[in-house]
Amino acid sequence: MTMSRIKAPPVARIGDPLAAVSTPALLIDLDAFDANVAAMAALAQRHAVALRPHAKAHKSSTIARHQVDAGAVGICCQKLSEAYPFISAGIRNIHISNEVVGPRKIEMAMDLAHQARISICVDHSAQVDALGKAAADANVFLTLLPEVDIGQGRCGVASTRDLLVLVERIARYDRLRFGGLQAYHGGIQHVASWEQRRVAADVAAEKAAQYVAYLDALGVPCPVVTGGGTGTVEFDMRTGVYTELQPGSYIFMDGHYGRNEWPGEWRSRQSLYIASTIMSTAKPGMAVCDVGLKGVAVDSGLPLVKPGQYEDVLQYVAANDEHGMLKIAAGGLQERLGDQLLLVPGHCDPTVNLYQQYICFRGHKVEDIWEIDARGLSQ
Amino acid sequence: MTMSRIKAPPVARIGDPLAAVSTPALLIDLDAFDANVAAMAALAQRHAVALRPHAKAHKSSTIARHQVDAGAVGICCQKLSEAYPFISAGIRNIHISNEVVGPRKIEMAMDLAHQARISICVDHSAQVDALGKAAADANVFLTLLPEVDIGQGRCGVASTRDLLVLVERIARYDRLRFGGLQAYHGGIQHVASWEQRRVAADVAAEKAAQYVAYLDALGVPCPVVTGGGTGTVEFDMRTGVYTELQPGSYIFMDGHYGRNEWPGEWRSRQSLYIASTIMSTAKPGMAVCDVGLKGVAVDSGLPLVKPGQYEDVLQYVAANDEHGMLKIAAGGLQERLGDQLLLVPGHCDPTVNLYQQYICFRGHKVEDIWEIDARGLSQ
Repeated sequence: MTMSRIKAPPVARIGDPLAAVSTPALLIDLDAFDANVAAMAALAQRHAVALRPHAKAHKSSTIARHQVDAGAVGICCQKLSEAYPFISAGIRNIHISNEVVGPRKIEMAMDLAHQARISICVDHSAQVDALGKAAADANVFLTLLPEVDIGQGRCGVASTRDLLVLVERIARYDRLRFGGLQAYHGGIQHVASWEQRRVAADVAAEKAAQYVAYLDALGVPCPVVTGGGTGTVEFDMRTGVYTELQPGSYIFMDGHYGRNEWPGEWRSRQSLYIASTIMSTAKPGMAVCDVGLKGVAVDSGLPLVKPGQYEDVLQYVAANDEHGMLKIAAGGLQERLGDQLLLVPGHCDPTVNLYQQYICFRGHKVEDIWEIDARGLSQ
Repeated sequence: MTMSRIKAPPVARIGDPLAAVSTPALLIDLDAFDANVAAMAALAQRHAVALRPHAKAHKSSTIARHQVDAGAVGICCQKLSEAYPFISAGIRNIHISNEVVGPRKIEMAMDLAHQARISICVDHSAQVDALGKAAADANVFLTLLPEVDIGQGRCGVASTRDLLVLVERIARYDRLRFGGLQAYHGGIQHVASWEQRRVAADVAAEKAAQYVAYLDALGVPCPVVTGGGTGTVEFDMRTGVYTELQPGSYIFMDGHYGRNEWPGEWRSRQSLYIASTIMSTAKPGMAVCDVGLKGVAVDSGLPLVKPGQYEDVLQYVAANDEHGMLKIAAGGLQERLGDQLLLVPGHCDPTVNLYQQYICFRGHKVEDIWEIDARGLSQ
C-alpha cells in the first residue's frame, strides 16, 4: 500500500466569497476587529495608560503585530511556551502573567530570556529561588512581578507580609529585578451590571493601591502595576493605580461579554464568528449544523446565531461532539439544508484554541488568513 | 530586529521519566491502552461482528494503525477533512459516519474517493444528488449509507418512507452504491444503569432491525448495518442486527463513562490522563494547577484526580482558561507546589482535540510520542 502524503484542502482561499468557506471555520470580521484595535489604543492613550494586550485570547502573532503597531508596549502571555511564536514574529517585550514551576519551565524561562525582554509572575519564594539560581547559571537578567490577590482568590499573595517576603527574596539575586506588581481580578470581568462592575473594579484597584502604598512606605518603588481585563478596562484606566492594562477579549467580544451592560466608555464590536453549515434537516422543527464541541467552547454558554441573520428563527440548543442542534421557531422555514450560519461563540479564548487559522473577511469576501500560531501551546 | 524562528521545546522526550514531562500534557498509559485495544478486538471476534473503531475519539493515525493491526476492518471518521491523515498513513477503508453538504465538501469527498474506499452517510435526497453527479464527473465509485434515526433525534431519516426515497435515489446514479445503514444512538451511551442501558440498546437495535426488515421485504439487501458506541457495545454485539460496530472511547475511558455501571462483558481501563503541575499554593485550603479550559474539556463534568494518587485530598472544583482550582480536603497537606498531578478528563473526545501529541508511558517512563495528526480537522 502506498504511503503518499495527502493533505486536507485549505478551509478558505484569499479572495473567496465568505459563503464558499469550508465549515467549521473561525472568522474575523476585519471592520469590527480594526475598530476594536484602534478604539482600545485610543482609550489607553487618552488615559495615559500603557496597553499590553493579552495574547492568550488570540494566540496569533499576526494579531499581536497589529496591536503593537497600534501602540501596545508589548503583550502578555499566560504560558511560557505560548511566547515562542510571538518572539519569532519579532515581539520582544513579553510579560508572562502567571506563575511558573518545575525544572522544564525554568529552563524555558531562561531560553526565552535570552531572546526577549521577559517578565514573570511569582507568588512563592521557591519560584524566586529557582528563577534566581537559573538566571545566574544562564547569565540572563529576568524581571519578576509578584502577583497580589485583589479578590480573585486564585494565585497571588494575599498579605503585605507575604509580598514583602517575595520582594526581599528577589533582592537576594543579582540577576533578578523586582519589576512591580501583577494585579488581576478575572472574576469581576463578567459582572453584568455596569454599575456593579464599576464598584467591583474600584474595590479591586483599591486593594492593588494598598500594596503599592505599602511598598512605597518601605521605599520600594513599583515601576509597573499591570492587570485589568476587557470587562473592567474603562474603570481600571481611571483609577491611577495601573500603569498598564492587559485586556484580551476586546478585539473579539463573545456571548459571555455580550451579556454585560456597556453604557460607558468601552464597548467592543463583535468581530469573531464561527461559520457553520446546516447539514441535516431530517427532524421537524430542528436543524443540525456542523459545529459542536470541537468547534466551539461551551463553558460560558452555547453559541448564539449572529444577530441579523437567523436569530429569530434558529436557536442553538445543544452541542454534541461534531453536531450543533438548532431549534427552528414555530413558523420558521424547515428546509435550510446547506445554509451557512454565523455563530457568536459563548467564550472566545477556548474557542480560538480549537482552530489553526482565522479566516478574515471584509464585507462578504475573504481578505486574509492568519495563523493561530500559539494554538495549543499551553506549557 | 531579527526574525529568527525559535520553537517551543518538546513537551517530553522518549525515555524521560513521567515526572519530567512538561505540563499540561496528554498522556496514554500504554498498558491500559493495549489491554483495551486487545479486549475490544477479542470481544468483536467472539461475537463475529466487524470492528470499525471511531477515529474521531483519538484523531491519531498511529492509534488507527494499532486498531487495524488488531483486526479492525477500517475506521470511522466524523468529518471528511479528518480522513486525510489516516489515508496518508495507509488506512484505506474509511466510513464517514455523518452527512456532508455543500460544494467544498462534495469536492473533498471526490478527492478522498480517489484515494481510498470511502462510504458516506446521507439523510436527504439533495445530498444523494450532489454526490451522484459529482461521482459521475469525477469518475469514482462511492458507497452511501442512509442514516436511520434509532432514537437519537439528530440526523437520519425517521420513517421507512423517507428511507425508501433515499435508497431509490441512490439507485438512479451509476457511480453510487447503496452500502447499508448507519444506525447510531449516542444519547443512550451514558445511561448509568447497566440494566437500563441494556434495555435502551435493545430498543434502538430493534428500530434498526425494522428498517433492515423493511428493505429486505422489498428485496433490497443491507450488506452493512453500522453503529454502536462504547457504552452499548456489549449489548449491540448480541443483537444480530449490526454487522459492524463503531466504538471510539473504549481505548481511553473518561470521567463521564466512568460514571456508568459496567458489570458485564465490557469495561475499559482508564488509559487517558492529563499531566498537570501545581503552580500556586498561595491560598489556604486551595491549590492551583496548570490545566484549565484549554487543557481539558468540561462539557461532561470537571476532571477527576487520578484514583490512587491524591483523590482523597485534592478535588478539581473549577476550571479557568489556563488554571484549575483544586480544593484541599481538611487535614490535607497545603504545601504541594510543583507536585505533578494526573487528571482523568470528563470527556475524552473534545479533550484530545486540544492537544497535538500523546505522551505515551509505561510504568513511570515515556515510551513513545504519537502525533494527533487529525486534531482540528473538523471540516
